[in-house]
Amino acid sequence: MAKQRTASLLIIGNEILSGRTQDKNLNYIANRLKKIGVKFSEARVVPDIHDEIATAVNALREKYDYVFTTGGIGPTHDDITTESVAKAFGVKVIRSPEAQKMLEQHYAKREHELNDSRLRMADVPEGAELIPNPLTSAPGYKKDNVFVMAGIPSIMQVMFDSAVEYLETGSVIHSKTISCDLVEGDIAEELGVIQQKFDETEIGSYPFIHQGEFAVSVVVRGFEEEILNAVIKEVESMIRSKGGNKIEAP
Amino acid sequence: MAKQRTASLLIIGNEILSGRTQDKNLNYIANRLKKIGVKFSEARVVPDIHDEIATAVNALREKYDYVFTTGGIGPTHDDITTESVAKAFGVKVIRSPEAQKMLEQHYAKREHELNDSRLRMADVPEGAELIPNPLTSAPGYKKDNVFVMAGIPSIMQVMFDSAVEYLETGSVIHSKTISCDLVEGDIAEELGVIQQKFDETEIGSYPFIHQGEFAVSVVVRGFEEEILNAVIKEVESMIRSKGGNKIEAP
Repeated sequence: MAKQRTASLLIIGNEILSGRTQDKNLNYIANRLKKIGVKFSEARVVPDIHDEIATAVNALREKYDYVFTTGGIGPTHDDITTESVAKAFGVKVIRSPEAQKMLEQHYAKREHELNDSRLRMADVPEGAELIPNPLTSAPGYKKDNVFVMAGIPSIMQVMFDSAVEYLETGSVIHSKTISCDLVEGDIAEELGVIQQKFDETEIGSYPFIHQGEFAVSVVVRGFEEEILNAVIKEVESMIRSKGGNKIEAP
Repeated sequence: MAKQRTASLLIIGNEILSGRTQDKNLNYIANRLKKIGVKFSEARVVPDIHDEIATAVNALREKYDYVFTTGGIGPTHDDITTESVAKAFGVKVIRSPEAQKMLEQHYAKREHELNDSRLRMADVPEGAELIPNPLTSAPGYKKDNVFVMAGIPSIMQVMFDSAVEYLETGSVIHSKTISCDLVEGDIAEELGVIQQKFDETEIGSYPFIHQGEFAVSVVVRGFEEEILNAVIKEVESMIRSKGGNKIEAP
């Protein structure tokens, strides 16, 4: 089996840390990466501070195959991602003629003028390759293994579609879930034994509230669906032996 | 003005990185910290791997006044937060007699038995102080400046209520928002000028979609409400001078 690639996400945004905005990009990216067999290994949220962004970019790009960033690439003074990524790589910020052309074509057809602030969205770290943005034209970019994307979910998602083409995808991790009306502590010991027996899978247990009572979902992840089925079968018979009933997952 | 304390959050959970669960704790904690004047400076999401958790705990507790962790303190084999935090501090895991008593009292009144797996929830790093959990009895704990809490939002929230009592709170950061039907790029330059004039405040600009068109919210944060009002007044007259109209924030 080919080595599975690893990915990380850097969310750049005071608005997330201030509580103003509930981030939705992490969960979206997590689900997309799962589908293409890239392991999502870490995420960080940092404020709009040059050094914090640059330090996090460098930590993540050394540790993981891919780094995605979201946020901070708009036209305003608080959009400092590009300067920070350039700082992380020790390169200059340059104006991309190709990006400028994209912006010119976009704004030529619109009432808004392409002013100096908007032109900042054509700036990229030296050596970056553009990631197109069919929605609002201002592109993201790829600098080595770092993919810089917008923070607005709809724009981030179209950029991610383009970014995916650069990724070396891997074997897809499948998952199967079984939920029951027992409580986590009732099945903890037996679940540990099953995990030891099937150590090529990853068994997780997640409590939730069902009809006012605690219940639990057991999720098994792994590359081979047949093995997952075998694990689920054992978990199911263990649940029955404890007097539990299968219920719908939340 | 007293020094403002800083806080960080470590989300421990494969279920967040796998995309199975949308985290809700970060946004809750962000809003609570804002209300008590503690600066929320960074968040990380790491998988259920001992070394990853321990490394992140150590990085965050050195850098920030407070570290909150969520997740991984239940009874099952994949709950490894306590071992990992103990490792980060270089101390042993011990069974807390006080926590064991809480569990015994809770389970004495219930049909579930207090088995070995559940008793694991009484284990804490040596030197930890318990954070009570009136909902399901298994406590969180505080080890130096690290607050270890459950991942289930309802339980995390009652633990957070207790954790707050340990915090040195600060001056509250206020915020004021004005939204308009202009596009970010229309006001970027002028906003930058206003930010320079009022450098004791932090002005953020957040695009959103309003009636199918891009619009923008300008958020001003700072300690003094009067100054925020002055900034909002300048932003408002700048918006008017550009032909924009105030609209409701999203």
